[in-house]
Amino acid sequence: MKISILGAAGFIGTNLAIKLAEDKSNVITLVDTVDSFFEPHRKMGLGFNYRIVNFNEKTDFDRLLNGQHVVYHFFSSSNPTKSNLNIPFELRDNVLTTSLFLEACVRQNVHKVVFLSSGGTVYGCEAICPISEDSSTRPITSYGVQKIAIENLLYLYNYTYKLDYRIIRLANPYGPYQRPNGQLGAITTFIYKALKHEPIHVYGDGTVIRDFIYIDDVVSGILNIVNGDIKLVNLGSGKGISIKQILGLIGQTLGIELNIVFDKARTVDVPVNYLDITRYIDLFGNPVTVPLDEGIKMTAAFLDKNYV
Amino acid sequence: MKISILGAAGFIGTNLAIKLAEDKSNVITLVDTVDSFFEPHRKMGLGFNYRIVNFNEKTDFDRLLNGQHVVYHFFSSSNPTKSNLNIPFELRDNVLTTSLFLEACVRQNVHKVVFLSSGGTVYGCEAICPISEDSSTRPITSYGVQKIAIENLLYLYNYTYKLDYRIIRLANPYGPYQRPNGQLGAITTFIYKALKHEPIHVYGDGTVIRDFIYIDDVVSGILNIVNGDIKLVNLGSGKGISIKQILGLIGQTLGIELNIVFDKARTVDVPVNYLDITRYIDLFGNPVTVPLDEGIKMTAAFLDKNYV
Repeated sequence: MKISILGAAGFIGTNLAIKLAEDKSNVITLVDTVDSFFEPHRKMGLGFNYRIVNFNEKTDFDRLLNGQHVVYHFFSSSNPTKSNLNIPFELRDNVLTTSLFLEACVRQNVHKVVFLSSGGTVYGCEAICPISEDSSTRPITSYGVQKIAIENLLYLYNYTYKLDYRIIRLANPYGPYQRPNGQLGAITTFIYKALKHEPIHVYGDGTVIRDFIYIDDVVSGILNIVNGDIKLVNLGSGKGISIKQILGLIGQTLGIELNIVFDKARTVDVPVNYLDITRYIDLFGNPVTVPLDEGIKMTAAFLDKNYV
Repeated sequence: MKISILGAAGFIGTNLAIKLAEDKSNVITLVDTVDSFFEPHRKMGLGFNYRIVNFNEKTDFDRLLNGQHVVYHFFSSSNPTKSNLNIPFELRDNVLTTSLFLEACVRQNVHKVVFLSSGGTVYGCEAICPISEDSSTRPITSYGVQKIAIENLLYLYNYTYKLDYRIIRLANPYGPYQRPNGQLGAITTFIYKALKHEPIHVYGDGTVIRDFIYIDDVVSGILNIVNGDIKLVNLGSGKGISIKQILGLIGQTLGIELNIVFDKARTVDVPVNYLDITRYIDLFGNPVTVPLDEGIKMTAAFLDKNYV
């Protein structure tokens, strides 16, 4: 199968690409904006093809998508934290660009588009946890507004042109290849800081609750959803855990005393968010095979080898 | 109060402006893209101010909104029928432009933004009629996708910047000042054709069901919602009537034998759409004071005088 991952240099894209490469019949093209992002991928020797393009109004999506069967839409110019800084710009770079991408998917007869949506931002703070897919969507970040707009575009293009798609509303993933830069990925960032014995900055008092899932379980979950019949599925652990609890678990698992600094809470953070994963479980069974302490150990081992 | 209506030359904007002018303390500015659109308004002698601007990425919304208390966002580059023809273009002209508009509303301390959404398109075809505000929103037109994106932006700007807003999910309005051009407004178009003894073209077999409400009731309803506390409200008659039934009623009320031509059905038409108006009724009572036959007579009288 010919598979393209747009936004392939990111955390999820990288792990997905490695998994997809296990099937030698797959021809996998990794697409992202900067050539040096692919340095780790080139070292893997997994036979990936590479394409360097920007994702914007000028992108030649037809050229990119020609002959592709399954296309993963993992690109985003934004993240939840910074997405409210320039909302019009974000809308253009993500929603408008995605509509141009979808037009090209139709023209090029792409079989299926897989979109990575955000279980952590699309529901906002009015939904009741655990949050099911049928809950109302009232995002408090432009990131979430963009994700909903793109989900609605996928539905529209499917209705109008029969373009097949899957939407994964993902919780908070963590693990190898997540960049420990502090913008995203609390667990990975905390472990990195712990290993380096640096202060760990927490926004608010640590009572914020999130739904963490190890990257290997994310990748298996995505592939189950892609090969299944249901178009929109929550993917997470289905369990909420506070930032304080996570920090306790990291300290205990790694045997490191953490230096925690509590900063001011951010308006972009939903206080409590964990997903109802009943739909996923009914289809494919429990997505979680890696418990948190084990995931923390594996993430620490990766960071220790690659970054610290 | 200083009030601006953006998209004021349209059907709803014109009728709303006339109503708002009854309160002589209101300073009303009508904004639209083409000066000649305001010829009828100038003849009314109601003391309106006029501003001619395009609504796009280059619009100086700060200049337009400076000092305004209540701003009606009634502009749209599109309509449900043609909105799927160039989806990326539509998204830029409506969603992106609206985010620039909202940024300016925040900077200029606008007290309240009133957005005309679409009860006929935001819900799509999966919702069960009568459709309540809490139903899922899966539009089958880019017009509906745009409306939902703008609704989500209003929620986001309110959450982030406390910008107050109201959203009216309007059913199918009809009456004086609706242009009988056949793109929008089945009742008005049918009456116009009937008065001119021209063939009336119907898409499909006439079983499509819609929720029609006379413009005077629409304007009263909008003002109730604007002055009330609830941010998002359906506004319609709450009753479904088929196109066939409407044609029968028009023929009977006007005493004209209609020449009906049945054309091919369109994919952009939701088969059945009428709104659950319980939320509105609980707040303000029944919005409908003009029954359909009376509305048809008044619309016919207006068309007869102005167009036929």
